[in-house]
Amino acid sequence: MKFKKQIAGLQAYQPGKTMDEVKKAFNLETVTKLASNENPYGASPKVKEFLANANIDFALYPDGYASKLRAAVANHLNISEKQLLFGNGSDENILIVSRAILEPGLNTIMADLTFGQYKHNAVVEGAEARTVPLTAEGEHDLEKMLAAIDENTAIVWICNPNNPTGTLTPSDKIKAFVEQAPSDVLIVLDEAYTEYITDNSYEDSIQLIEKHPNVLVMRTFSKAYGLASFRVGYAVGSEEVISQLEPTREPFNNTVISQEVAILGLSDQQFIADCKEKNNAGKSQFEAYCRERKLHFYPSHTNFILMEVKADSDVVFQGLMQRGYIVRSGNALGKPGYLRITIGTKEQNEELLQKLDEVLTEVGVI
Amino acid sequence: MKFKKQIAGLQAYQPGKTMDEVKKAFNLETVTKLASNENPYGASPKVKEFLANANIDFALYPDGYASKLRAAVANHLNISEKQLLFGNGSDENILIVSRAILEPGLNTIMADLTFGQYKHNAVVEGAEARTVPLTAEGEHDLEKMLAAIDENTAIVWICNPNNPTGTLTPSDKIKAFVEQAPSDVLIVLDEAYTEYITDNSYEDSIQLIEKHPNVLVMRTFSKAYGLASFRVGYAVGSEEVISQLEPTREPFNNTVISQEVAILGLSDQQFIADCKEKNNAGKSQFEAYCRERKLHFYPSHTNFILMEVKADSDVVFQGLMQRGYIVRSGNALGKPGYLRITIGTKEQNEELLQKLDEVLTEVGVI
Repeated sequence: MKFKKQIAGLQAYQPGKTMDEVKKAFNLETVTKLASNENPYGASPKVKEFLANANIDFALYPDGYASKLRAAVANHLNISEKQLLFGNGSDENILIVSRAILEPGLNTIMADLTFGQYKHNAVVEGAEARTVPLTAEGEHDLEKMLAAIDENTAIVWICNPNNPTGTLTPSDKIKAFVEQAPSDVLIVLDEAYTEYITDNSYEDSIQLIEKHPNVLVMRTFSKAYGLASFRVGYAVGSEEVISQLEPTREPFNNTVISQEVAILGLSDQQFIADCKEKNNAGKSQFEAYCRERKLHFYPSHTNFILMEVKADSDVVFQGLMQRGYIVRSGNALGKPGYLRITIGTKEQNEELLQKLDEVLTEVGVI
Repeated sequence: MKFKKQIAGLQAYQPGKTMDEVKKAFNLETVTKLASNENPYGASPKVKEFLANANIDFALYPDGYASKLRAAVANHLNISEKQLLFGNGSDENILIVSRAILEPGLNTIMADLTFGQYKHNAVVEGAEARTVPLTAEGEHDLEKMLAAIDENTAIVWICNPNNPTGTLTPSDKIKAFVEQAPSDVLIVLDEAYTEYITDNSYEDSIQLIEKHPNVLVMRTFSKAYGLASFRVGYAVGSEEVISQLEPTREPFNNTVISQEVAILGLSDQQFIADCKEKNNAGKSQFEAYCRERKLHFYPSHTNFILMEVKADSDVVFQGLMQRGYIVRSGNALGKPGYLRITIGTKEQNEELLQKLDEVLTEVGVI
């Protein structure tokens, strides 16, 4: 078969142990997953209510234009409906953007470390993935990213706050970058965690689009909205950019129920405000822990924290898993010696940090 | 922006009138959609039961490997789990296959008329879409398709039964084609309507894969299973082909609920058998109507029928819409003078054909 040559070396998704498998393997009664930055408080209660009483003809295709959801998001953001692209999670929006633009001979710029799907999709499209190290503070090094742009640069990815560091690149620096970058380079601001930002210096980046139609902002219902199981992400851009992306989107990419629950999620902003407040308190638990034990951590503006463990990440990861907590090993994220932990509920955080103490004592770190 | 040049002329999905809009526009109490070959009997009742009582943590990502659904489908088809690729509908599987293989310089062969997504995806990838007219009977002209293959041919699409004609290309002809085609050409058998086939000559094409690892069979839960709202399709291939496709699939492409209801759908084969029987009876209603009025139709092996109206398709389409029935105009499908109508329930078919009589009388055809 004539598979594209660049795909030959690509790693497919490797399924990890399911929560049931972890329970069985370690004879545990409960297992808590704080690995994928999901909302530990679930989703708005409106979602469960809706599903219990939903009167939907399951046999009918979804509205391929997501008209009702589109109207709701446009209204929420005070933008035109034609400025929106809906994807099966931000993952699909990253795919759509990459597929519409990248090809052999072009390059795309991203941070090292950042979300892995930018590079993955660049490889699939046969484009060069050009990486620029984060600053010591974990911010995007926008000066160096600007310098890395050449005439073949097609897309720059800025994950903000960044995954897996949780750090925020300041709005004024992003604005300056956008003003200096060539206008034919698409600048993607992936803001999957935007609802968790508490920093007052953060300015809504959607306002950049009017003056800079090459800016595309990505957001999702999978994080603060607690709807990861339904896979809905959206991108906000200029009408010009969205109209070029739309033909490469497969038309029925969000299920009927996913569209409905996203509207419900959006309508419950009190739920988001409550989660944000609790997340902030939970973050302090981790920060205090790290300070006390002199473990480095990146200042997080998200619902996760990347923290040092001064030991083999995989060993600590395994130790936590045996004790019923699944987190993400830094080895899997390109940051050996660190763990990325989703901030859970107060009780989950307390118990996890107690188990972490046990593991770090066992390996001789504390 | 550096959008791929082949995307510039591509048409994005154009949303049609929703059922609510049709109601309003024509002051109708009920509107029946028989346009997208959805199952008029809905889905297995197990699905509604499940949703009403589902105890799901909506905040958690789906199982990216669809392990439970994978096991269920593998068991149902008596194949290895590694032979399966799951997509967000067959639409996504067509995208995955195209994206993994097609590029400028390569070509892909398909019928004219057939399902539009093969060509659409070929254009996105910059490959040549080479079309071969159907035979007068509406079958794939496999001899001419074989002759159209050259050293740059990467994929051949055989939609069987074919959309929009509903015709079946016989299994023995497909077998002969597969045996003669070069082994480095991927042969996709898109069998979205396979559950509706009643023809005794049909042989399960999955058995071709063992001897011919370049055969990929696509099926879906969106048609007979009545789960179009949930978007689940799957492809069955050799482990070699599936392992090359997997890295280009975005890992969380099916929602949690979609995976669950597909398992339930699969477990209710009595529902499928009942729908097949009723569909067959409904097909006879349309065939009798066409014979009586001397309107040509293609012999259908699906839950839809492509029939002549001896008038401008759009005019007849409009006339039916004003009377509360949405069907598909042949103009939109590359077959002017015809309508594609989804076979509905006995009562729906009776009423629709009565309305069609009204419209055809109005335009002077009968």
